[in-house]
Order: sequence, then structure tokens, then C-alpha cells
Amino acid sequence: MDSNRTEGNMIIPKEPKLTEEQLKEIKDIVNEYNCKIQPIEGIHRTIYALLGEEREQVMINRILGLDYIDRFDAIDSPYKLMDIHSELTHHQIKVGNSIVGTEPFIIAGQCTIDPNNPNYFLETAHAVKEAGAKAIRGGVWKPRTMPYSYQGDDSAIKILVEAREQTGLPIDTEVMDEHQLEVAMDAKVDILQIGTRNALNYSLLKKIGEKTAGTQTAVLLKRSRAMGPINELIAAAEYIAAGGNPNVMLCPRGTIPQVDGYRNNPDESITPLVKEKTWAPVIVDPSHSVGRAKYVCAASMAAMAYGADGLIIETHVDPKYGIGDDPKQALKPDELKTLINNVNLIWGLTKKK
Amino acid sequence: MDSNRTEGNMIIPKEPKLTEEQLKEIKDIVNEYNCKIQPIEGIHRTIYALLGEEREQVMINRILGLDYIDRFDAIDSPYKLMDIHSELTHHQIKVGNSIVGTEPFIIAGQCTIDPNNPNYFLETAHAVKEAGAKAIRGGVWKPRTMPYSYQGDDSAIKILVEAREQTGLPIDTEVMDEHQLEVAMDAKVDILQIGTRNALNYSLLKKIGEKTAGTQTAVLLKRSRAMGPINELIAAAEYIAAGGNPNVMLCPRGTIPQVDGYRNNPDESITPLVKEKTWAPVIVDPSHSVGRAKYVCAASMAAMAYGADGLIIETHVDPKYGIGDDPKQALKPDELKTLINNVNLIWGLTKKK
Amino acid sequence: MDSNRTEGNMIIPKEPKLTEEQLKEIKDIVNEYNCKIQPIEGIHRTIYALLGEEREQVMINRILGLDYIDRFDAIDSPYKLMDIHSELTHHQIKVGNSIVGTEPFIIAGQCTIDPNNPNYFLETAHAVKEAGAKAIRGGVWKPRTMPYSYQGDDSAIKILVEAREQTGLPIDTEVMDEHQLEVAMDAKVDILQIGTRNALNYSLLKKIGEKTAGTQTAVLLKRSRAMGPINELIAAAEYIAAGGNPNVMLCPRGTIPQVDGYRNNPDESITPLVKEKTWAPVIVDPSHSVGRAKYVCAASMAAMAYGADGLIIETHVDPKYGIGDDPKQALKPDELKTLINNVNLIWGLTKKK
Amino acid sequence: MDSNRTEGNMIIPKEPKLTEEQLKEIKDIVNEYNCKIQPIEGIHRTIYALLGEEREQVMINRILGLDYIDRFDAIDSPYKLMDIHSELTHHQIKVGNSIVGTEPFIIAGQCTIDPNNPNYFLETAHAVKEAGAKAIRGGVWKPRTMPYSYQGDDSAIKILVEAREQTGLPIDTEVMDEHQLEVAMDAKVDILQIGTRNALNYSLLKKIGEKTAGTQTAVLLKRSRAMGPINELIAAAEYIAAGGNPNVMLCPRGTIPQVDGYRNNPDESITPLVKEKTWAPVIVDPSHSVGRAKYVCAASMAAMAYGADGLIIETHVDPKYGIGDDPKQALKPDELKTLINNVNLIWGLTKKK
Repeated sequence: MDSNRTEGNMIIPKEPKLTEEQLKEIKDIVNEYNCKIQPIEGIHRTIYALLGEEREQVMINRILGLDYIDRFDAIDSPYKLMDIHSELTHHQIKVGNSIVGTEPFIIAGQCTIDPNNPNYFLETAHAVKEAGAKAIRGGVWKPRTMPYSYQGDDSAIKILVEAREQTGLPIDTEVMDEHQLEVAMDAKVDILQIGTRNALNYSLLKKIGEKTAGTQTAVLLKRSRAMGPINELIAAAEYIAAGGNPNVMLCPRGTIPQVDGYRNNPDESITPLVKEKTWAPVIVDPSHSVGRAKYVCAASMAAMAYGADGLIIETHVDPKYGIGDDPKQALKPDELKTLINNVNLIWGLTKKK
Repeated sequence: MDSNRTEGNMIIPKEPKLTEEQLKEIKDIVNEYNCKIQPIEGIHRTIYALLGEEREQVMINRILGLDYIDRFDAIDSPYKLMDIHSELTHHQIKVGNSIVGTEPFIIAGQCTIDPNNPNYFLETAHAVKEAGAKAIRGGVWKPRTMPYSYQGDDSAIKILVEAREQTGLPIDTEVMDEHQLEVAMDAKVDILQIGTRNALNYSLLKKIGEKTAGTQTAVLLKRSRAMGPINELIAAAEYIAAGGNPNVMLCPRGTIPQVDGYRNNPDESITPLVKEKTWAPVIVDPSHSVGRAKYVCAASMAAMAYGADGLIIETHVDPKYGIGDDPKQALKPDELKTLINNVNLIWGLTKKK
Repeated sequence: MDSNRTEGNMIIPKEPKLTEEQLKEIKDIVNEYNCKIQPIEGIHRTIYALLGEEREQVMINRILGLDYIDRFDAIDSPYKLMDIHSELTHHQIKVGNSIVGTEPFIIAGQCTIDPNNPNYFLETAHAVKEAGAKAIRGGVWKPRTMPYSYQGDDSAIKILVEAREQTGLPIDTEVMDEHQLEVAMDAKVDILQIGTRNALNYSLLKKIGEKTAGTQTAVLLKRSRAMGPINELIAAAEYIAAGGNPNVMLCPRGTIPQVDGYRNNPDESITPLVKEKTWAPVIVDPSHSVGRAKYVCAASMAAMAYGADGLIIETHVDPKYGIGDDPKQALKPDELKTLINNVNLIWGLTKKK
Repeated sequence: MDSNRTEGNMIIPKEPKLTEEQLKEIKDIVNEYNCKIQPIEGIHRTIYALLGEEREQVMINRILGLDYIDRFDAIDSPYKLMDIHSELTHHQIKVGNSIVGTEPFIIAGQCTIDPNNPNYFLETAHAVKEAGAKAIRGGVWKPRTMPYSYQGDDSAIKILVEAREQTGLPIDTEVMDEHQLEVAMDAKVDILQIGTRNALNYSLLKKIGEKTAGTQTAVLLKRSRAMGPINELIAAAEYIAAGGNPNVMLCPRGTIPQVDGYRNNPDESITPLVKEKTWAPVIVDPSHSVGRAKYVCAASMAAMAYGADGLIIETHVDPKYGIGDDPKQALKPDELKTLINNVNLIWGLTKKK
């Protein structure tokens, strides 16, 4: 079903947050109408999504009658929370020491952590920090086209955590199911990545939203490589936010059909279109869109030219010893440093406006 | 990682099936090398997938030395089980009383079961049987673009089961996560459908393969609507088969970018290309590819012209009262009857060769 | 400029045709307003397009004042002549002894006429007639990706004409510029083909419309292989009709990006969408869409299932001796015969409705 | 026919150029073998393409036997002249006072010259010069989707020439057929533009190559908006070069299917892929790829990030009074100035390497 019509509303209290008693009172009212209340905690204030099919006016009137309620917010939008005009429009996402949107947010590291060679990953972590990266990526589990290929290993999470401890940088890894989500959350992974193959796996998106509700955990949601409408990408993010976690960053990573010579068809150009519809930061993945190290710097600069808030860049201290995509895609740390210098310069031009 | 190189082999016993003792003996050997054995049960014989990264020749020699082993089968193919030349090349899938491939296998029914109006679904079930359908589809859970839209309800499974009891036809429903899988398996659903959004959700595919290993449960795997390579579609099926269930049917359902005027871009034309690479039946979904009832019959005939083994057709006794896609897409039972007559005629032309 | 807004009107006389005096009188009026009159001759009646930017009401009133004028027809459509609701909606195209739309119109023959081996072409011409084809195709000039490849030769037109004389079937060839158009018209070629690379070459389309105005010459306009909107295809045909020749047939021939395994992405599925907007016949080219002989029969049946009025099929008595696409794409005459039998059968099913 | 295999060779003289006598002597030889010689005049030297199907070794030996011949150059490439490794690899294109490739080559001006308002165009010409543009674009003739829309007017060429005289900048206009080509050449237009609809109109490309052979006239060849292979784009340029004019610049201008929100799908990202295969400069057209003025600056910077040699930007002193695409796409002169400043800065980063 592809209907985009919106249902439900946001309840906006007069105070930044409802008290327990106030929340209970409202929950009791909406339960009578088979509806539910979902708090959405922003940094500065909390708003309350009303979930359910029913929209009886009497229920709405009863809530509006409460003196601590400011208003009902019914945005005419397919998405109520991620919409550029929603209550969350000024919501900021804090990852480690960075506030995304205030400077280029560069995530860098290996495609895949090799549990048999943890030192490569730790060296890479130190190197990307030195080059100026703000977060470290490392694949613990990998979606593989073939079932007989290496699928990742829970044990690699320890290496990722170790990298955070040694460098002080936040860590990013992809999760594909509930088990991996639990392992990642036990390790307090800072950025949970949803890959392109699960970009519309709504069961997983809901689960992540619920499990991380009220935490500072960020979610990096990649765009489905099918060249779907931008609304669909933002609506997928809405699943996570409606679950209770608005800390969602959107990630164009190339679409198919691929351009002959690249791994995919670079799609950083959608960035300004996305930013007209949502307040969510856009973090572009040029490593997967072009799929060859030699093109990554140009694609990164292009992403910044289009107004991206950050990049996720595969980097390896010695790509030929990498596993997964790294031998083809990973930059060397010095290449990453040049890339970061270039994108900082373009950031200056684009963010002036 | 998009590498398609194959790893592992198939162990082919001399007898149709290994005894418990023989299986244990082999497992003990491969465990020494951190490998695993996965039996794949066909109707006529069982073969044994060797899973793992290691391929030490000494292990292989030890297995080949066992007098009840016929040979190692190392197909040079991205997929060992689904490949047209694999041991399973003559594998047949039995659903209800139908053997797929021997006559047009038509699945028909509502997009979504409305728990508030079970009679519509039951009437539709009887009507599609009368029209000549071989299985009944009904959506218990639905992927919705928006989190605030109706997402389905476990309770609807009872209505689906009731339809099977009243008609004697096997039943089909889409599952999107482990919970839904369990509910569907408790209800002994005959055909588990994987939707286009989860077509590359490898965690789910593995889980389904494992949970249904050794059963007669069929899986209808839809193609990702991203116009991905055919190898990727078959490799996704390989995940299910490698998990232990080879009863996989592949389902083209239209790709994007859509054709202006249709819901998607009809892709029944890939059928002959798929059938050159795999023995798996191809069941085309014209309802979603064209997305409008008035075009479904033409698209169904085209699918048969391209050699499809069957179709899945949204049908409703009174589409305007349907929910989900039915008001737009569902045929009326008499239209389904005409469709089936036409495709039977084309079947005669194409299956002669 | 992609504006689709229509300008101008059609003048409909009370009699099937204006007399010379009447036509002159109207031309004198519109010339005062820098407009032009273009007669469009149908089989049963002639209508008169008013061309130009100006639309002064006084001019229209003066024309409407003439007692032999029935009315002004201002269709709200991007195309006035090709529109399904235009005055030409019942216009029929006669090619040789066939009236397109009353039976499957099959054009068959070699991709390229080899001037050094005319007998192959003549044998093929007789063979396709025997197989049931209604017209003979033969490439005199060929668009070649490389400038150093064989580009065709004026002299080959004689061989094409010889084939018509020997078989009595009408002949079809592609023209790419004004010189080729003149050679083809001197030879009274029955069907002028516009290839996909020139599908939007408006200068050529205009020229063809003007040069063939008032003749029975048919034009087979291939769709641009860019997956452009259907309106654009019909609007291109409008250029030919507005030039004075409404005998235009539209030809889907596959789009890019190609499906891996085919030469293009088969697009016969647009046929019903085209037929909702225009009365023009649709002749599908499966030879170029799939690009391999072994898939052509299935694609042809699919085209008929979607309601095509005919097909253009590359055929060669001995494909391995063909030049151009024939070694890969051409059917043998007996394969063409089977194809025609199959599509006739499907025609019966689809044209009932 | 899509064969890309190369035929023919390049004859390289010892001196920069053959004498008349030498050229005649070689022509006499190749004529015996039904081949032709086509001189290709570069700035520094002339080479000689051997055209024709025959490749008899005896002919080659006879030519190699001439003491003023250095060698035969048989590049294993689909294109002999445009190939990055061809004799022309250091060929430079001079337009007005600019040598393309040594600084950002910015072409700017109106989409369409309005013959009824010449002053707008002249003011725009002065304004784009002041903003830093190196050449002036102005549409004399326009491809229009509908035959009833304004198609342009020969008379507008005078206004374009007037702009050159007043500003001293070279001028660019699109030609679609032989008549327009003649009018443009009589006016000594500096840059002949081939639009996306004629990008594969080989008859026109040949004609332009022949008519401009030996002149300094540049040709701006737009990419077909069908997302065709890069080889096809370069091979189309080869038609012009093989005709005798190697001054070809390639122009990505967006492809279809469009990105929802843009006019097309921006394709500046192919620039590095093109530059690996050909020495030809790449001039990107962001105005048509995004199709909205507000996105043009970002797309221009992205094009430079990908290594483009220049841009063609629709600009109008007062877009709302523009005709054609200008009201939607054209920048104001001050916006063009900002754009040029930004791209100059990025040029510094990318051309360092």
C-alpha cells in the first residue's frame, strides 16, 4: 500500500514536557478510543504522537480541554515528525562531541572488521581520527549476496568498542535484525546504520525506534538503491521517529541501474530536494555510490556542493589487506585527509547561504 | 559486498538419504574444520550443503573416502542449490494438490484481510476457487509507507485459515519478521510470501529457510523492485534453500522507475532469463506491476507468453469495499475466470516447446 | 522546451472536403493573421489544421461565418490530430492490401540489405510472404554506432523494390535524412521507418510529413529508447500528421537501461497506455527489444497480449550470412511461421473485447 | 547495429602536414581499394583517417613504403580520433580568446532569443560578459515537443551576431538540420550546439563534421538523455571528428528517468569516466539537468568537483520575461557571478591533481 495520506496528530503541551500524571491522564482518554500516545523526546522539548486509526472529534476535544495542553498539531504532510515544518524542525542530533549540521560530519573506517586482524581496524581508527573524522565506522555484520560468504561475527563488536575507547570517537555499525540490534545496543553503539537492503524493512525500523526511544543513539538510514521517491525515504525515517527516536540521519548511497564504470548511479544530487522536505541531516555515502577509491574524493566534494551535512567514507590503513569492499573502495588515511580539507572548503561556500 | 563467487560444495550420498549415523559421522569430520552440514530435502532425495569458509582438501578427501558417499558436487555457479544444473534441477514444488509447473498455478484473493469484515474474504475465497484458482492469497500484515496506516493484525490469520478449511485450497500470506513468521507457521500457512521491500532482507530469508527446513512449506519470493541483476534474485532464493527449504518460487512484480500510467514497470519479460539460470518456478504478480485492474488480464497473458509457471492475482468479490490496494487493483471473480481461461490457452502454446 | 500546451485548432467543413475556391478563401483570411492552413487528408474526409501563434477571435469568427464550415474543433489535448478524440479517431491506415487494425499486421525481413548478396534478400522476401507476413522490411541505410562501419548504400533500394515486384508485398525501410527520404520516395517505398535515434528529430519528422502529405505512404515511428513519457511519443507523431500525413504507426522497440540478458528493456507493455491516448496503430518491434532470436516469439506473443496491432520481425533465410543485427536477431522463416500462428491465436482473445 | 569494433587506421606523416602532391598520391592508392582519405586538422599537426571496409595488407604496405609517411596508427579502440590515446590526445580547442581546459569555460545566455525583444538578449550578453562568462549562448531555433509551439526564426541569428559584435565574445547556438547549419555557418557561429534529441542523429553529425572541416568552429555535443553507454557518446563525437572537425566538446545535460523534483537526473558524475576514455573537454549543462534556477549553482559546483572543463548556464537579465525555459531555469546575472566565483574556487582544488 503506497498511500501517503497522514493520520493522527501531535499533541503539544504548554510546558516542555508532560508530568507523569498528565501523561497518564491523556493515555486514559485515548485508550477509550483505541489510540496510543508515543512521546517523542527532543533535546529541548517532548511532543506526543497520537497513534491509531480512530480520530473521534470528541476525544480531541477532551484532550484540548486539558489546561496543560497547548494544541493539536495536524501537519498536512505524509510525515508529521520528520517534516521540515514539524515541531522538530530545530531538533539537533548530537553524536559524540559533534552536533550534526554545525560542521562537516565525517564518518570513516573499514567496511568490515576482520576479527582475525583487529589491529588493522584499530590502526585505521587512530588514522581516521588524525585525518579529521568525527566518527568511526566498522562493519560487524555484513549483508552478502551469497549465503556462503562471510556474514560477520558478533565477536567483532568488541574490536569496535575498543576503537572507541582508544580514540574517544563515537562508533557506527550496520544492524540487520533484532539480535544484532541487541548486541549493538549492549555495546552502546553510537550510530546504528540501516543498509540499503533494509531501507524499507519497516519491522526493523519500528523495532529500532522503540528500542532506542529516549536515548541519544543516532540512526543512519540509507536510501533504498531503488530510485524511489524522496517521500518514501523520509517516511521510512518517520517509522523510527514515531517509534520514539528522532535522531535519524538520511544517507543517499547511489541507486541502480548503475552507471557503467561506477558501482551504482551517484545520487548526492537529491540532497537539496530532501532538505526542502525534512529537517533531518543528510550524510552522503560516496564510497558505495561510485564504488572505486579513485572517484571518492570528487563524489565527496560534489555531495558537499549539493549541501550535504556529512559523509561516510570507507577508509583502511592498507586497503589491499581489507575484506569486503575495502580493497576496491577504501581510501588511505592521507587521501581521507585531503578529502576532508577539500570538503571543508566547499562547506564554507555552501553554508554561507 | 556484491561478490558472487561461490564457496562450499554439495555432498551427494549414494542412497537417496544419509542415515543418522552417516550424517553424524560426516558432521564430526567437518566440525574439525569449522564447517557445518545442512541437509536439503527434496521430494526424491536429500543432498547435503557444506557451509563454512574453510575448504581443506584433507577434509574433502576424508568425506570422499566414506563408502556411502557418491561424490562432491562443486558447481561453478553463484548458487549451488538454485542453479539450473544443480542436483535439485528436477525438484518439484507441491502446494496443496498442485505440482507447480504442470499447469498454470494461479494464486488469487484479497490484498488485505479486513478483520472487521471476514465475510468478504471468505466469499472471495470461494469465488476464486470457483473461478479456477489453485491457492488463496490474503494479507494478514501489510507493509505501509506510513507508520500511521493500518499495519495488519495477528487475529486476521484465523480468517485465512478458515478460508482454507472451507475451500480446501492452500493459503498464502506475506511475513515481514520473525514474529509474523511464527504466527504463520503455527497456522501452517502453505505459502509464505516475502515482499519486495524484504526481498534482500537476508536475516529474514535465512530465518525462513531454517524454520521451514524439511517441511513442504513453499516460499514465494518477490523480486526487489529495484531493477537488480537476475543473479541477485536467485542468490536471495539460495539463502532460503541453504537454510534447508528448497521450495522457493520467484516472483517478478514490476520494477521502478515506474511507467507513467502503471504503478511500476512491468517485468514479466525477465521470465525466460530467470529460467535459463534456475529450475525454480516463476510466478508473476501482474496486479502490482500494472497496479490497475483494467490492465491485469493483458499483463497476465503476457507473463504466460514469456513462460511463467503461474500468477498471483488480487481478487475481491466487491473491490470498492476492499482495503489496501484492492479498490484499485483487485479483479472481480468473473474477470479472474476470463483471465484464467485466456492464460490456460497461452500455456498450451508456450509449454509445447 | 517541454511545454505540452496545445495551440491552434482544426477547421471541420460540412462536406468531406473543401473545394479549391473554399480553401483559397480560408487561406486568404488566415494569411491576414500570419496563420497557415494545412489540409489533413483522411480516407473518408479531409480536415484542416490552422497553424500559427496568433489566435485572434475575429479571424475565427470570420471563418465560422462561412456557410460551408461546420465548426472549429479545439481539442484540449497536447495533440490535435493524433488524439484518440480527434476528428481522425476512425482514420484507418491502408498498406498494400492490408488495413492495419483488422488483422495482425506483420512486417518481416532482413535488418540490412547486403548489396553484394541481393539473392538472400529476395529469397527472404518470398519466405516471409509464404510465412504470412503482410509487408517486407529491408534496411537500405543503417545508423551505426561507429562512423567506420558500413552505413548502407543507395543502390540497395533497387533490391528492395525488386522484392516488392516479385512478391506484391509493400516495402519498409528506415530513412535518416532528407537525401534518403528523396531516394525512398522516388522508389515509392510504402512504409518509411524512423529509427529510435531520430525519434525526436523534429526537423526530419516535419520534412517527412510535408513530403508525404496527401499520399498513402505510411510512417512507422519508433519510440525513443529513452524511457520518455508517452505524450512525447504521440507528440512526435503529431509533427508528421501536422505536416500533412496522418498515416503514422507507433513502434515500441525497447528502452534503456537494458535488462541484463536482453539488448534493451522490453516495453510492449506500454501498448494499452498508448491506445488510451491515440487512435494510431501500435506495431511492436520485439527483435530489437530482446535482441536475441530465441526470445522473439515470446516477446511477440506478449505484445499481442497487450493489444498490439502488429509486429516488425527481423527474418533471414540464413541468419548466419546476414549483416547488421541479423546473425543475432533474425528468425528463420519457419520460426516466423510459428510466431504468426501463435500471435493470430492471441489476437482472437484480445480483440474480442 | 551496436558493434563497437573499430575499422580503418590513421596515417601519420613525418611532417606536420602532407603536401598536396603527397595527399594526392595516397588518395590514388587507396582509391584502388575503394577506401577514402579524410584529413583531420589539429592545431599543431594534421593526421589522415583511412575510411572504408577494405583493409588489404598490400595497400597498407604501399602507403608505408612512401618515405614521407611515419607510420600507420591502429588504435584498439572503438574510436580512433577521440580516444584518449589517439594522435589528438594533446589537441586543444580554441574558442574566441579561450583555450578550453586552461580555465573554467563558462557559456551563458538565454535559452531562446526573442526576435520581438532583441534588447533583452543584448543586455543579457553584456551582463554575462561582465559576470565572467567566456561565450554567449542564444537559441535561434528550438526543438519543441509540440509542432504548434514557437520553433524559432532564422532572423534571430542577426541578434546573436550583434551580441558578438558588441561584446567580443564567441557565440553558441543549437542547429537541428542542414538549413540551420548553413545559416549558422554563414553567420560564422563559433560554437555549434547539438541537442540531446539529435545526439545520435548521425546524418547531422557527419554533415557538421564535413561542413566545418578545417575550420576553428567548435561543436558542443550534448549527451542523449537516454542513459546510454559512455562509448556511444564518444563514438557520436567521432562522427564529427571523422568528418574533419576534431573541435568537439561533450556535454552531459541530465538523463531520464528524471529525479522527482528535477527536470532530469543530473549526470555530471560521468565526467571522470568520460575523461578516462577521451581527451575531449567536458562542458556540463546544469540548467537542463536540474531544470530549476535555484538548484543550478549547486549542480555547477558539483560538476566542477567531478572535473568538468566548463559549464553552459542559462542566464537572463529578467527571467520572467524570457521565453522557452528561461522563466524556470535562467539565473540572473548576479547569480551567475556568484556561481562563477564558486566554480573557480573548486577548479583550483580539482585541477591541482
